[in-house]
Amino acid sequence: MIDLRSDTLTRPTEAMRAAMARAEVGDDVYGEDPTVRALEERVAAMFGHEAALFTPTGSLANVLAVGLLVAPGQEVLCEASAHIARAELGAHGAVSGVTMRTWIHERGGVDLDVLRRLVAPDMGPFFVRTAAISLENTHNFAGGTVLPLADLQAVRALADEAGVAVHVDGARIWNAHVATGTPLSEYGAATDSLAVCLSKGLGAPVGSLVVGSAEAMAEARVRRKRLGGGMRQVGILAAAGLHALDHHVERLADDHAHARLLAEACGTDPESVHTNIVVVEKADAAGFVARAQDAGVRVAAVGPTTVRLVTHLDVSRADAERAAAVLSTLE
Amino acid sequence: MIDLRSDTLTRPTEAMRAAMARAEVGDDVYGEDPTVRALEERVAAMFGHEAALFTPTGSLANVLAVGLLVAPGQEVLCEASAHIARAELGAHGAVSGVTMRTWIHERGGVDLDVLRRLVAPDMGPFFVRTAAISLENTHNFAGGTVLPLADLQAVRALADEAGVAVHVDGARIWNAHVATGTPLSEYGAATDSLAVCLSKGLGAPVGSLVVGSAEAMAEARVRRKRLGGGMRQVGILAAAGLHALDHHVERLADDHAHARLLAEACGTDPESVHTNIVVVEKADAAGFVARAQDAGVRVAAVGPTTVRLVTHLDVSRADAERAAAVLSTLE
Amino acid sequence: MIDLRSDTLTRPTEAMRAAMARAEVGDDVYGEDPTVRALEERVAAMFGHEAALFTPTGSLANVLAVGLLVAPGQEVLCEASAHIARAELGAHGAVSGVTMRTWIHERGGVDLDVLRRLVAPDMGPFFVRTAAISLENTHNFAGGTVLPLADLQAVRALADEAGVAVHVDGARIWNAHVATGTPLSEYGAATDSLAVCLSKGLGAPVGSLVVGSAEAMAEARVRRKRLGGGMRQVGILAAAGLHALDHHVERLADDHAHARLLAEACGTDPESVHTNIVVVEKADAAGFVARAQDAGVRVAAVGPTTVRLVTHLDVSRADAERAAAVLSTLE
Amino acid sequence: MIDLRSDTLTRPTEAMRAAMARAEVGDDVYGEDPTVRALEERVAAMFGHEAALFTPTGSLANVLAVGLLVAPGQEVLCEASAHIARAELGAHGAVSGVTMRTWIHERGGVDLDVLRRLVAPDMGPFFVRTAAISLENTHNFAGGTVLPLADLQAVRALADEAGVAVHVDGARIWNAHVATGTPLSEYGAATDSLAVCLSKGLGAPVGSLVVGSAEAMAEARVRRKRLGGGMRQVGILAAAGLHALDHHVERLADDHAHARLLAEACGTDPESVHTNIVVVEKADAAGFVARAQDAGVRVAAVGPTTVRLVTHLDVSRADAERAAAVLSTLE
Repeated sequence: MIDLRSDTLTRPTEAMRAAMARAEVGDDVYGEDPTVRALEERVAAMFGHEAALFTPTGSLANVLAVGLLVAPGQEVLCEASAHIARAELGAHGAVSGVTMRTWIHERGGVDLDVLRRLVAPDMGPFFVRTAAISLENTHNFAGGTVLPLADLQAVRALADEAGVAVHVDGARIWNAHVATGTPLSEYGAATDSLAVCLSKGLGAPVGSLVVGSAEAMAEARVRRKRLGGGMRQVGILAAAGLHALDHHVERLADDHAHARLLAEACGTDPESVHTNIVVVEKADAAGFVARAQDAGVRVAAVGPTTVRLVTHLDVSRADAERAAAVLSTLE
Repeated sequence: MIDLRSDTLTRPTEAMRAAMARAEVGDDVYGEDPTVRALEERVAAMFGHEAALFTPTGSLANVLAVGLLVAPGQEVLCEASAHIARAELGAHGAVSGVTMRTWIHERGGVDLDVLRRLVAPDMGPFFVRTAAISLENTHNFAGGTVLPLADLQAVRALADEAGVAVHVDGARIWNAHVATGTPLSEYGAATDSLAVCLSKGLGAPVGSLVVGSAEAMAEARVRRKRLGGGMRQVGILAAAGLHALDHHVERLADDHAHARLLAEACGTDPESVHTNIVVVEKADAAGFVARAQDAGVRVAAVGPTTVRLVTHLDVSRADAERAAAVLSTLE
Repeated sequence: MIDLRSDTLTRPTEAMRAAMARAEVGDDVYGEDPTVRALEERVAAMFGHEAALFTPTGSLANVLAVGLLVAPGQEVLCEASAHIARAELGAHGAVSGVTMRTWIHERGGVDLDVLRRLVAPDMGPFFVRTAAISLENTHNFAGGTVLPLADLQAVRALADEAGVAVHVDGARIWNAHVATGTPLSEYGAATDSLAVCLSKGLGAPVGSLVVGSAEAMAEARVRRKRLGGGMRQVGILAAAGLHALDHHVERLADDHAHARLLAEACGTDPESVHTNIVVVEKADAAGFVARAQDAGVRVAAVGPTTVRLVTHLDVSRADAERAAAVLSTLE
Repeated sequence: MIDLRSDTLTRPTEAMRAAMARAEVGDDVYGEDPTVRALEERVAAMFGHEAALFTPTGSLANVLAVGLLVAPGQEVLCEASAHIARAELGAHGAVSGVTMRTWIHERGGVDLDVLRRLVAPDMGPFFVRTAAISLENTHNFAGGTVLPLADLQAVRALADEAGVAVHVDGARIWNAHVATGTPLSEYGAATDSLAVCLSKGLGAPVGSLVVGSAEAMAEARVRRKRLGGGMRQVGILAAAGLHALDHHVERLADDHAHARLLAEACGTDPESVHTNIVVVEKADAAGFVARAQDAGVRVAAVGPTTVRLVTHLDVSRADAERAAAVLSTLE
């Protein structure tokens, strides 16, 4: 079975398992795990930020980051299909007391004129204050689309003018980096914080990081504990992340090539595929999913007429070609 | 000084004061205030709902209503400049743990195609569930615009199909009712709950009501107490509301006529004025406000180039004409 | 019927109604109501604090005060039967995200050794921080007991040493003041904030105030609006409060005398009655309540074998004597 | 260096690392990780409950369990030095909107008369409702004390009578089980839910479980995701837990013997040591800690005159004897 439902499904490679098995560890609640420290320092440096903090999930990384920028009773602005708006179970309201207003953009991007209308940081004491803008890169539910660096920088400029912070949900920022060649430090330079994930395209079993200032990360460490995310000998997991950064970043280009190959096979314009996610319109999405499964390929229906395919570490070139052959024959 | 900053500024009339002074009262926390009960029953009946509950403010009425329809971790959809999104200080997130997604509509209305895209009541256990749609009628920050009944009914139909609730923030629904002749019961028939206000156009000093099912109102009563809104001999205030319903509803037509008169004086198309709020574009809003005040008319800047004028019970025909004369001479 | 269930049941007197009817008012959300301002300034001055803020209920006054002193994730310490712990519907957790730890004291007071064990303001970043101690004076559920000033001052000293704030829930502090002769300013001097109520012994229909620093009250004003407590022409209610302060404070001594008279009639030691609340043990509380009602006196069962009687403005000397005569004959 | 600061400090053994390295894994958000499923089923069965759910920390297990039993605006009762009251950073209020009332017990236990006074499940709609009682076994901050099974069963009976739930924070319930021989199923039979931990005495690097009904665990799974605790290929960690259950439970008896040995060396009555935690009073706790460290033994000051020693998997008999020899010479 070739599983294209999500890039969260990857299993650790033998080399990654070996790295985990020999990881040096300590009690990270006491700040004594050398491997997680090394990972945090490395990732912070990659983005040109002062510090980073390991979290069990990307959702927690986003909740911590947004919660640090936006106080209860303030708002964050984001695109209406952003992961923080759709797929974090309302944590930003339920846990952080934050409200959202959203704009709608076909490809998960930004329209500066619309954003300018929404931003309202200083309407006086009886209005919600816009405290942050959150962008997603690549944008999961818009089909793995890349947010152009120029757009991020324009939002940064608009935000600076308004006195508002910028967060990037970069769960798949590695894909954006590989697809465009944009240095990670450029993303870092335009943001107050980022959330990045090790357990999607990079293939680690567990783990994300929130990246930002040293002061923010110190407070994030306390809040992580309050939310039940302060683990002990977490170097086991951090070792997988370090291994992934060494070995699984550049190879994302393969996933992107495989995605275009699948797009073509499904009648989707490969030019619309920016990274490792392919969105396909089919008259009967559920039926397509069932027929694909019968033929040995698992894909996901994400709407009544919409199917999603995701390539990843556990899908080889041969797998992609076989899946393409199978899917091209299905309606 | 003629004060056009807001219709919340009205002072109780002598007749209203007399009604308050002779109100029969009891301890409403014990459910023993006959005047507030009479008001609650009357307002519930006007909208064809089972029950209503008095609240000290319209904000509390909205917070209770939305909080009853939308659990923590679920979402409400609304227009991006809705009062619940902009002017309730983030209470829906901070107090109720609710998240929001918003659409943008020039006149505070709805675009059904957009709404259909946003509504997502059944994406599975790991997605935010859309639990309610909230509409505002008339829409304050869009300039007192009326939501056409047909649009409300279309949203109702869409919501029914999706298994989602409909709330109307009807702080100024009396204005919509008078402007269009739509019976209040028609608004009631299309909604799960409404919030209506006595202290804006109707001229009562304090008070709003949330309207809905008997079961919801019983729970709202408990939550009102949790939020510190369970007052004692509140019949004093309810008496003002009953008086307002007797004497101040039909006269809203005068406010609407005065608003159109002011629009014309300010160079705004009177056809764009649906009710008692006039939005005027001026090159220098703050300067215009200052010059108007010097000339005896208070208006409010609600943006760098946007001025808002609101007519109400304390603005007579003569006041409106004098204000129009003054404002027509100012840049 | 003589109603001794609660001192919240009082109805405004004719003179109070007249004061309300002629109150000068404005829109208090805009800070333009002169009567509420006068009340706030007067009450602040009575307690020697910088500022005060009117609230619709005592619960809201406590929620605002405690929420200002104690951040989400911090704790307040209080006696286990305090109003804030028992009768505010969990608002301190549900609305403010505050946790509590409690001590148990027969008469609602403090045991300094126990309190010293509980206070924990500096256990490091992974422990709940004690941010405030809350005391109640008089203590409602302990039977209207007075907290000795010396105890309050000792708690203040302990709190200062620990770097912790002190709040007093003084819903009935007027009763403590009249019963002991302690100047209100002495209570003020020992506290960071107080909540005081106009609608219990003082006989106003609605209204409480939170009292504290100017900075805290400015923030309380914003939070009051978030919680739906920002009313408009609230001078109507404030006028009742001002009238009550002029006419209904010293007369609380009558309520206290009536309470002792009732205690004697019910076989309770009058020395145990500090103010206007009498707690009576009866083998069958519910039966006693029913028999009293049949005889024209309403009292409340607050436990299977516990009955509570409360004297107030609407209970005259003659009423108290009649009630005493009735109750002395019942088992 | 012999490290006695905490039993959270243990590092995985070689055999445990090997078990992790070969663990079969899948995406646990999709319910597809066979190893975590096996662990959840095994732990549920040990306690005679229907289901269990893996969590990254014991704090999260407690937050989920208490949050399922106690709605926002309701209360949980616990001892004043319980982990849920002291060391979870106020999450029960800040995240779950729950309030607490506490009793004080020298050894972290229960006094049924006091508890009976506190429990208040049915005081009517305007009072906080007691929804659960939480007990801790063994009790960390009371010095690893065992809660007698009879006490737990008496609380269960009291709770049943009152219609209130019972939760046990069993982070170290394995120690209680080994120290007393009480079957785990007896603990399970007396509880609605438990939280149990793999990363303290059992020596796994990361992981706890919440245990309860199938329905509650299904809802806990959703809430775990909301709180950012829904990890992917978590079988890596679950494999360590399974290994610990196979190999590290019975050996806790060694830790207990070592603890008594250390108590004796420090002049503490060994009879007061129930399990693996020793609390020692020293005139200058900080000084003692420093002198011990100089002599090669790390211990923790948990108060100005209180030192805590904890034995665990990484402290051999020889280590314990050496530490005892060192500590017996220090003041």
